[in-house]
Formats: sequence, C-alpha cells, structure tokens
Amino acid sequence: MPTLVMKFGGTSVANLDRIRRAAKRVGVEVAKGYDVIVIVSAMSGKTNELVGWVDETSPLYDAREYDAVVSSGENVTAGLMALTLQEMDIPARSWQGWQVPLKTNSAHSQARIEEIPTHNINTKFGEGMKVAVVAGFQGISPEGRITTLGRGGSDTTAVAFAAAFDAERCDIYTDVDGVYTTDPRICAKARKLDRIAFEEMLELASLGAKVLQTRSVELAMRYNVKLRVLSSFEEQSDEAGTLVCDEEEIMESNVVAGVAYSRDEVQMTLRSVADRPGVAATIFGTLSNAGVNVDMIVQDISEEGRTNMTFSLPADQVSRAEKAMASIKGTEINYQNLVTDTEVAKVSVVGIGMRSQSGVAAKMFKVLSNEGINIKVITTSEIKISVLVDRKYMELAVQALHDAFDLDKAA
Amino acid sequence: MPTLVMKFGGTSVANLDRIRRAAKRVGVEVAKGYDVIVIVSAMSGKTNELVGWVDETSPLYDAREYDAVVSSGENVTAGLMALTLQEMDIPARSWQGWQVPLKTNSAHSQARIEEIPTHNINTKFGEGMKVAVVAGFQGISPEGRITTLGRGGSDTTAVAFAAAFDAERCDIYTDVDGVYTTDPRICAKARKLDRIAFEEMLELASLGAKVLQTRSVELAMRYNVKLRVLSSFEEQSDEAGTLVCDEEEIMESNVVAGVAYSRDEVQMTLRSVADRPGVAATIFGTLSNAGVNVDMIVQDISEEGRTNMTFSLPADQVSRAEKAMASIKGTEINYQNLVTDTEVAKVSVVGIGMRSQSGVAAKMFKVLSNEGINIKVITTSEIKISVLVDRKYMELAVQALHDAFDLDKAA
Repeated sequence: MPTLVMKFGGTSVANLDRIRRAAKRVGVEVAKGYDVIVIVSAMSGKTNELVGWVDETSPLYDAREYDAVVSSGENVTAGLMALTLQEMDIPARSWQGWQVPLKTNSAHSQARIEEIPTHNINTKFGEGMKVAVVAGFQGISPEGRITTLGRGGSDTTAVAFAAAFDAERCDIYTDVDGVYTTDPRICAKARKLDRIAFEEMLELASLGAKVLQTRSVELAMRYNVKLRVLSSFEEQSDEAGTLVCDEEEIMESNVVAGVAYSRDEVQMTLRSVADRPGVAATIFGTLSNAGVNVDMIVQDISEEGRTNMTFSLPADQVSRAEKAMASIKGTEINYQNLVTDTEVAKVSVVGIGMRSQSGVAAKMFKVLSNEGINIKVITTSEIKISVLVDRKYMELAVQALHDAFDLDKAA
Repeated sequence: MPTLVMKFGGTSVANLDRIRRAAKRVGVEVAKGYDVIVIVSAMSGKTNELVGWVDETSPLYDAREYDAVVSSGENVTAGLMALTLQEMDIPARSWQGWQVPLKTNSAHSQARIEEIPTHNINTKFGEGMKVAVVAGFQGISPEGRITTLGRGGSDTTAVAFAAAFDAERCDIYTDVDGVYTTDPRICAKARKLDRIAFEEMLELASLGAKVLQTRSVELAMRYNVKLRVLSSFEEQSDEAGTLVCDEEEIMESNVVAGVAYSRDEVQMTLRSVADRPGVAATIFGTLSNAGVNVDMIVQDISEEGRTNMTFSLPADQVSRAEKAMASIKGTEINYQNLVTDTEVAKVSVVGIGMRSQSGVAAKMFKVLSNEGINIKVITTSEIKISVLVDRKYMELAVQALHDAFDLDKAA
C-alpha cells in the first residue's frame, strides 16, 4: 500500500468537533487505498498551559522534566484521534514517541531526530491497521527519557515520518490554505501558489512567513519529501493547498516566487571605525559570542583610514548587542559612536528563477526608487535579494514589488 | 538508606501551590535521611476531563486508547513535582509507568500489577537522587501499551512500590486526617483511630468508608506494608493520621473498631418459593450470571414446603436483578411474587476483637431493639456484623451503636 503522512496542527484539533473533522479527512485518504500516518499536535492552548506551569514552578527548569510535562498534550490528542477513527470503523491506534520509538539525541526541549524504525508500525499495517496516529513533537533519548523537538516540532515529526516510511506525500493541515506570494493582510493582490520550490520555501520561512517551520522544510528538501500545505477548515481536492517540492517538478514559474518582509529588524551602525585588518572579525566575533544573530552587514568605503560598519539584527537582541559593543569601545576598534535605528524593516524577493535570469536586483532597486523609498542596506543570495528600508515604507515596498514582478498572475 | 513511599491524591496536588506544599512534606522526610518514592495522582478534575472527552468521542471505547489518554494527567503532576523538588535543591526526577517499568497484565483500564523491577530507580538513588516521583495509576502491558489500574489505582501503585522497595512505611496523603470510628458527618462523637488492623480496614473500605481503595489494603496486608493515612492540609508529626497495620502491632483495641454504613442497598424478597434442594442455587446462579452482586441472604423457615428468600444488592443493579428474576418465574422455582424495598440501609460493626470476645452480636441487636429499630436481615463474618434496617433509622442506629460500644473513648 502507498503511505501518506497527514499532520494536523493545534487549531485543527482544538476540540472534539475539529478532531472529528480532521478524522473525516483521514477517512477520505484511507478510502483511496492509502496506509496513513497521522501526526497530531496538542489541542491549541494546551501546550501553552503546560509550559506556563513549568515556568511558574521552575524558571530555570530541568529540560528533561519540561519535556516530560509538555509532551503530554500530544498524547491526549493522539488517543482521541485514534478513538474517533475507530468510531468511523477505520482500524487505528495511537503511538507515543517512545512507542515508535522515535529516537532523538539528548538535547532536551530542542532534540534532533536520529532514527525512526519502521518495524513496529509496518507490522501493524500488515495486520490490517489503516491509520497510525502518532503524537507529534516528541521522542525518546538514548537514556530512555522523553524529549521534545522544540516549537513547531510536529511539522518536523511529520516530514521525518514521511522520509522514513517513503511516503507518497506529507500533507500539513493548518489554519491557512497554502503559501502565498506575499502576506494577504498587507497586499490584497497576494495569490496562493500551487507549487513552490524547497529552496524558495526555506528562504520564505526564515524570512518570517510562519506557515512551516524551517527545520521541516530543510528535512523535506534533504529527503525529497513532497510537502503539501493546506487548510483543515475547507473541503479539499487533490490539488488543494500549496505543494512544496523539488524545483524540477515545477514546470513554469515566475522569476520571483514571493515577497517576504520582517518588522523585527533593527539597524546598528558603528561610526568611524578604524579600518584595519581584523576589525570586522573582532566586531562580529564579539557579537556572536554574545549570542547576537547578525543578519545583514554593510561596510562603507574607507576614508582617511576610517569607515562605518552597519549591520542588522533581531529587535529582541538590541540590548545584548549594545552591551557587547560597549565592551570593545576602548580597544583597537576605537569607534566613535554607535547609532541604533529601530524604525526599519526588511523586504525580500525570493525566487529560484533568479539563478538563470539576471536583472532582478536592478529591477527591484528601480521599483523602490520610483516609489521614493531609500535603501539602507542590501544583501543578496543566489535566490534572494533583501533590503532594509524605513519601516514606514514597508507595506508600500511589498505592494510595489508584488505588482512589478506580476506576482498576482500565474506563470 | 531506608525508603519511604509517600502518595499524594488529586486534591493534594490540585494546583501549583498545593504541589509546593506536598513537596515541603517530602522535604521533611528527605531531611530525616529517607530515600523517598513519591506517587502522584492527576491534578483534581483533570482525569474527569480526560474521561469525559473519551466518553464523548467513543461511548464503547477501545480501553487501550482510553488508557493512553487518561494516564497523561499523572505524567504532568509527576514532572511538576520533580521540578518543585529540584527548586528546593532536592535531587529528584520523574518516572512514568513505562519508564520504571511498572509491569501489568493486559486488562486495560483495570490492569493488575505483575512486577515492579527496582533496578532503574535504585541505580539513581545510588547516584545521589533523593526522590523518585512516579506517576500513579499507570503501567505498561506485555505488548508495550500503556495500562491503567482503575479508579483509586494510585493507592495501589503506592502500596505496590512500598512492597517492591521494602519501604519502612507507605504514607497516603489525602483530604481527611485519618480513619474514623464512623462518619463524623453522621455522628459528632466519631473519633480518629491511631491504628487499625488491615482486616478491619478492609471491611470498612468495602462497606463504604472511602478513605482507601480496597485493593490497596489487600495488597498492603499480603505484603505487610505499614500503611498510614493522613491529611496533606495540616502540619504533620510522626504520629499523625491513622496507621493501618498488622493486628499484632496494635497493643490494645476496642472490641469494635468502627461502625460503617451504606445507603446504596436494596432489599428484595421472593415470596413463597418452592422449598426444594437446588432452589437457592438456581436463584443466585441466575443473579450472578446477570452480573448482580448479592450481598446479604436470608431464607425464612419453611412452611408447607414453601419459603421466602430475601437478599440485598447495590441500588444500581435493581433493574438487572428484576429482569433476571422474571426470567425464572415460570420454572420450578415457581415463586409467588417479588417485593423490592429501596428504603433500606446497611449498618455494620467491625472489629478484630470479636474473634476472641463473644456477645457482640447480642449486644448490637439489643441496642437496636432498645431504639425501636427493626432488623430486616443479618449477616456476620468473623470480624463484622451487618444488619439491614429501614433507611430512616440509619443515622440513629449508627449513633446508638457508636455510644454503646464506647467508640468515642480510646481503648
């Protein structure tokens, strides 16, 4: 039998009615002849309640106990989903992480999956079971303790099962109906994509499109798992949602697949830094040691042996970065002053078509210039161009770029 | 190190504050030098919520999935208790049933404990751990599925751990401060007992005193586990609560230890039954096959080859019993009619002293007679005399017997 993995997030199993609706979707796939592995999250709100109890009990908690407590929400959903399927006369049973066993390393609360033996579940499929309901987000460490995979870990669980069982597809049911060319709340012309390449999805995920967890996309790309994102709140056809797949499976595509943005950026500039070899290493080494994730970096042309060094970082790391920069003020770096600008935003265009088509950057800069938007920092990768702009222009920039690259029209 | 088992019921761990208070009690015992095994129930209300979800999802549920869902409440408490103890600088960790592993048979939702290997937990005690927090009520079947032990199963878990680890004592913390000579709500003079024999506790438990689950007392008696019942809501000395122990450890005791009662009894009389060999076997065989738990039985003196057969049963089994009796109306039993009296109650006196002292029954009957209370049915065992009386006299009977046997005074 071909195998299908279906993952239901917290809002899709928020109560018994929604669990029933999700189970009906599973029933449709079983009727098509699939052996189905269902990955479930905790009912929405439950994990937050459990995390709250742990935080209140022990601010610097033992992550092993955190995992033992927090993993219980998924176990409840898994049992209830199995019972719901049984009520529909579909042979099903639940599996907790340790029963599979989903083996992880010992990095509690952010464990990495090491192995998913297929024997136990396949034996049951062989005996006539049609659906294995697996509690997402959890596994078992080499020491026999319960581990969790970190926030969004149920997506990763789903993709890992799809890889281990060589599933035909991994369907991620969520509260949006797919991946869009940009955020529909900002740009009314945003269009749902039928397909998107793994690399594009990765760039979009890391740029703040919160549909899929980055790790799950990486894993899907590595094992070439066909990943589909679709809504659990609508009747779904085989073509619904967005398929995240290898770029070779996308016949025609726009040069730019989507426009992403992030409000949570801050720009910092070290003015009049001594321009000597090793200066950049000192600055960014210090920031890295302080746990600051620097994103974009620009160094001005040197003048009279001094230069300005500008970089961007997540908004919640500003005080950490300022402290780190203060600590090297008196060293050979010898900068004049540090200027922090919190009123910035990052806007990016992403698309695998950029690899083969030049001129995307030039077009992007021209579009922004026509709108009177000043670009503060630029970074590029093979399939992405990001700019930092004043935050007040963020929405205008997204809309203008969406129009200019014809993203409201399919390729 | 000597080992102590401490069990906290649902109301004793109902929220984070109560878990902290329970943890402080554990800390007191750790400070005395004990290695402590703590057995926890789910936070009160949690198990009912989970059971409600299962019932609503699947009225005739798969008990294996019921167990997987319902056991999750204890896992949460176990993790939170371990974290609370760690915050108090007491080395502690949680254990779920399958991690111990607490091995049971496969009778899901009412499994029996088969083995508790001590190796895993003792290894950790050897490494400096002071408290093992174990999720009560749950175990693992030979098939690797989660089992639960039935309602009140955490008491049974606690006693089984005390037996397996040869614990000095098993303390059951609950919302009452011990075992009383009778129900204080009915009899103001009720006195807390310092000690009670296993056999007495067993009779009291099965007669409706809901302090301890019958199975846990049986288990304690078989393995001679010293069992103490005490309140988690008061400061406790070493002498607090009630010790349930072997009768040889009770130096002096009243002939009667306590007076118990049960409102949930119904009396049935088959009038004018043919008095022939095999008639009783047919009647009570039929009731047994119908799942009716007959308690007391009385057969009148035979007159002209016919007799009356009276018996008592739990109130919720009346319709089942009436149906069963209707099915044999036309057989050789050939009774005239069936009379059901729901306005009855059972009152019992219990005490191991009865074994060596005669006249208890006579005294009991005289006390009731003096109060004008008619006895409808009598049964006796070695350490118990029970009578069925009109329900309206129940409280009067309990109070009169409590007075007559001087239960308000210690021996």
